[in-house]
Amino acid sequence: MSHSIRNKITGIVREITSEKVLSEIIIDTTSGPLAAVITTRSVRDMQLKIGDSVSALVKATNVSIEKDGSK
Amino acid sequence: MSHSIRNKITGIVREITSEKVLSEIIIDTTSGPLAAVITTRSVRDMQLKIGDSVSALVKATNVSIEKDGSK
Amino acid sequence: MSHSIRNKITGIVREITSEKVLSEIIIDTTSGPLAAVITTRSVRDMQLKIGDSVSALVKATNVSIEKDGSK
Amino acid sequence: MSHSIRNKITGIVREITSEKVLSEIIIDTTSGPLAAVITTRSVRDMQLKIGDSVSALVKATNVSIEKDGSK
Amino acid sequence: MSHSIRNKITGIVREITSEKVLSEIIIDTTSGPLAAVITTRSVRDMQLKIGDSVSALVKATNVSIEKDGSK
Amino acid sequence: MSHSIRNKITGIVREITSEKVLSEIIIDTTSGPLAAVITTRSVRDMQLKIGDSVSALVKATNVSIEKDGSK
Repeated sequence: MSHSIRNKITGIVREITSEKVLSEIIIDTTSGPLAAVITTRSVRDMQLKIGDSVSALVKATNVSIEKDGSK
Repeated sequence: MSHSIRNKITGIVREITSEKVLSEIIIDTTSGPLAAVITTRSVRDMQLKIGDSVSALVKATNVSIEKDGSK
Repeated sequence: MSHSIRNKITGIVREITSEKVLSEIIIDTTSGPLAAVITTRSVRDMQLKIGDSVSALVKATNVSIEKDGSK
Repeated sequence: MSHSIRNKITGIVREITSEKVLSEIIIDTTSGPLAAVITTRSVRDMQLKIGDSVSALVKATNVSIEKDGSK
Repeated sequence: MSHSIRNKITGIVREITSEKVLSEIIIDTTSGPLAAVITTRSVRDMQLKIGDSVSALVKATNVSIEKDGSK
Repeated sequence: MSHSIRNKITGIVREITSEKVLSEIIIDTTSGPLAAVITTRSVRDMQLKIGDSVSALVKATNVSIEKDGSK
């Protein structure tokens, strides 16, 4: 293990919407679609494109929990 | 849709490790285990326990992307 | 209580500024105006508009503290 | 304005719960109680104590929105 | 010490890229260039411009760690 | 470039303070000491110890800016 980010969800890039500063990436995973907002500079540097195999990385302190069946 | 948090990954609580202030919750999902760090106060208020059906919530701006097969 | 996000501040949407990817929402609260940056996709899905009654949600780990009267 | 953090909510420290690494601070505000999780090192360096006048600081990208009256 | 944000890295603003809602600021530091994404409203309120002496502020819970030399 | 996290600050681990759930890591860098709060599980999995060469990773959306010389 090379970094401390605990959550890594693999998937395929389905959609990229870019503005000058930020881009929204939609990833298809076995848990459904995930949305990531990253800098457009990173999209260019990674040469990210539709169909790429990627992992979504999420620090554990950024995950909240919702109880199902509750109102 | 009632809130703006785009990412919602369903799963079952497998493990709860609590300290006075924060707790780590491990959730089994179809994308593998996910770790969440929430306040122990929330664990108590939600009466969260092993076996509960929950969703992990993650704001899109807190998701990073790693390209697979890269070094 | 249905989710683990501890901070919930109620208010009224006063202003929405949208770009393709992200939108800034200004909410009037009894503690003054609050700014939230959410995806424009969420604004559309929630059909959010000026005058709506909403709550700002903030995870406790994302709150810092400043001491008043200090330099 | 000296920093870029848009949200600043004033209040009074009501409760401090400390572990070795992190502490939970409960602040009474006109919008109700707010919870902040900061390092215990910061609590010591700021000499934070119950009754102090403080502001909770929250970056706009860390605020989500929930529509009231929705399920 | 006036606020709880532990990490403060000083530098000089080298580049500002602005959209309607958010701006990317590139800061030259002794540890190399740092990127910050803040609201364009904050850029205006702070009258931030190229050449300004600034500090990048980062909450400790938002820092991850990567081990060098690992794959 | 293999991931989208823009900020990577290299340094040496100087101090590790661990609780059951979270640990605070102090890293010496050319920009001064940096503090990171990561899960204790990650500290174990990475076999992180004092003297290790590491990089602190910070997403650009988690960086705020303070103007020097301002009050």
